[in-house]
Amino acid sequence: MKTYTRPLDFKHGRVDMTHGSGGRAMAQLIDELFVKHFVKHCSNDMLAEQGDGACFALPAGAGRMVMATDSHVVSPLFFPGGDIGCLSVHGTINDVAMMGAKPLYLSASFILEEGFPLADLQRIVISMANAAREAGVVIITGDTKVVEEGKGDGVFITTTGIGVMPEGIALRASNIKVGDKILVSGMLGDHGVAIMSQRENLTFETTIQSDTAALHGLVAAILDAVPNLHVLRDPTRGGLATVLNEFAKASGHGMVIQEKSIPVRAEVAAACELLGLDPLYVANEGKLVAFCASDDAEALLAAMQAHPLGRDAAIIGEVIADEHAFVQMNTAFGGRRMVDWLNGEQLPRIC
Amino acid sequence: MKTYTRPLDFKHGRVDMTHGSGGRAMAQLIDELFVKHFVKHCSNDMLAEQGDGACFALPAGAGRMVMATDSHVVSPLFFPGGDIGCLSVHGTINDVAMMGAKPLYLSASFILEEGFPLADLQRIVISMANAAREAGVVIITGDTKVVEEGKGDGVFITTTGIGVMPEGIALRASNIKVGDKILVSGMLGDHGVAIMSQRENLTFETTIQSDTAALHGLVAAILDAVPNLHVLRDPTRGGLATVLNEFAKASGHGMVIQEKSIPVRAEVAAACELLGLDPLYVANEGKLVAFCASDDAEALLAAMQAHPLGRDAAIIGEVIADEHAFVQMNTAFGGRRMVDWLNGEQLPRIC
Repeated sequence: MKTYTRPLDFKHGRVDMTHGSGGRAMAQLIDELFVKHFVKHCSNDMLAEQGDGACFALPAGAGRMVMATDSHVVSPLFFPGGDIGCLSVHGTINDVAMMGAKPLYLSASFILEEGFPLADLQRIVISMANAAREAGVVIITGDTKVVEEGKGDGVFITTTGIGVMPEGIALRASNIKVGDKILVSGMLGDHGVAIMSQRENLTFETTIQSDTAALHGLVAAILDAVPNLHVLRDPTRGGLATVLNEFAKASGHGMVIQEKSIPVRAEVAAACELLGLDPLYVANEGKLVAFCASDDAEALLAAMQAHPLGRDAAIIGEVIADEHAFVQMNTAFGGRRMVDWLNGEQLPRIC
Repeated sequence: MKTYTRPLDFKHGRVDMTHGSGGRAMAQLIDELFVKHFVKHCSNDMLAEQGDGACFALPAGAGRMVMATDSHVVSPLFFPGGDIGCLSVHGTINDVAMMGAKPLYLSASFILEEGFPLADLQRIVISMANAAREAGVVIITGDTKVVEEGKGDGVFITTTGIGVMPEGIALRASNIKVGDKILVSGMLGDHGVAIMSQRENLTFETTIQSDTAALHGLVAAILDAVPNLHVLRDPTRGGLATVLNEFAKASGHGMVIQEKSIPVRAEVAAACELLGLDPLYVANEGKLVAFCASDDAEALLAAMQAHPLGRDAAIIGEVIADEHAFVQMNTAFGGRRMVDWLNGEQLPRIC
């Protein structure tokens, strides 16, 4: 039954306060934008039912589940290699995947600013739908709120993901032991530098693209090869340095990494110098850090490198006994320096 | 291990961009605010582990689950009867409960505006912790982002809830049949009028309090009494009129309600007149609308009235055959009028 007098104008229209009112304008936005794209792309009966939530059957034998959530406030909304839409799908899938779980479903909640172009919103929603379909994850429920001009910033998207945990997997910082090897799955710093270049209007010979990607396929592949993997984490805000410091604090051990082993694109290293950034602290959206027993490191590296998203993987360091739980780096010049927590802000609104 | 030089200043401190950076300041905010209150109140091992997400065991025999999400942008943040904190817990619990499910876990994601007082944030977090504990629901994971001053509005909170669906329950609009009775669980309009009075700086002889409350206990009680209940919905944004129109559209049937049967406090009716509002369209945060077969209506009413949150429940109307799926109301003056979809905005940022 059609109840709208004319379709939404996705060419010239803008978000207004009525789109968050609970009334007819909101129902139309949900029908003609969210349901249209999320259902079309996912043959998603659950979202089409439009209750206050969505019901789903548990996979047979599921014993444990994982839940993860992320608000996305990235600025600018569109950047080389992606946009807030696909980022908000990848980011939460990756949080679920880092626990070792298989992501199944997402919710998506939008906080829209009055005046935001419907064309941009449509582009973002299509990007989310495509990212979810490619990842095999279904967006089953959502919410839309609208705030007055000047009380938001275009669009913020909060996604929550749930997934099923395979039997016997327990990835956690307390698994980390002295002697463990530390691996990264590829080149660091691409996402943060792509955003900052866009924000500062910098152009380089080659455009640096965000690495935004869903990592659950890579995680499944490496867990298959090395079921005794100790822990995984995606180095997003705060970058590799933050992940290592969090794990050092949580495990009570120290870490030493080798600067010359850390994969960073030459363009990214050059852009970081220009922007005054340290690639160790720059956000990634399609990379992971893994810890495993020394004996498993070569098998883990091979499994990573065999996957398209882990081609440039490398062993970058190891866990050492250190009661201060410091993270240190042997520099390319032969010295050793501390890799401290990020103090202050480096890159605001990077994700 | 303590890694912070001094504790956060919850008396005079303010949110700054570093609290969203991924670095030390963010870790401190999480430790000293979110983990402290959510863990203390819930003996919550999962959040204390601080991975990218949380893992939980499924209840034995669970076959289906429900997921619901809501972003909360209510303004003002504090209002008579509640605040954005407890509202964000109740709102999502209620969305899960309206499906007939038992809510178990919540995620909570914060978008903070630079400069927001830490004292207010602490008050909100404590309110969330208390609301969750009282409801027997655990906040297991979360996220924090910070946006620049003027790009947000104090704090926005997105919560996502998951719950377990009991065997055999399938509440949905397509269950609605001609002849069904329509019930509401209590007085309508309290929440919206409490917010609007605060916003417009109106005072009445008695302060009108928001009805914000978690309804899953009431839902469990009424499902116990009437397992064949057809459908439930909480009349939040857009109020009772919006719920009835959504259900009319989804079921393809018409509805007639009796104005004189609809419970509205005298103070709320008076405030609505003063503010130019129609109580049928005003948001509630602790009420539900239920549809059941005519034969079950008295048992349902009795079950509602036996519960503290359903004391003022009433049968307000019924479902009729109408190919236009119109919602109509027999007025107190003996006439009949259309109850249309809300056109335009009535109450922006009410939840």
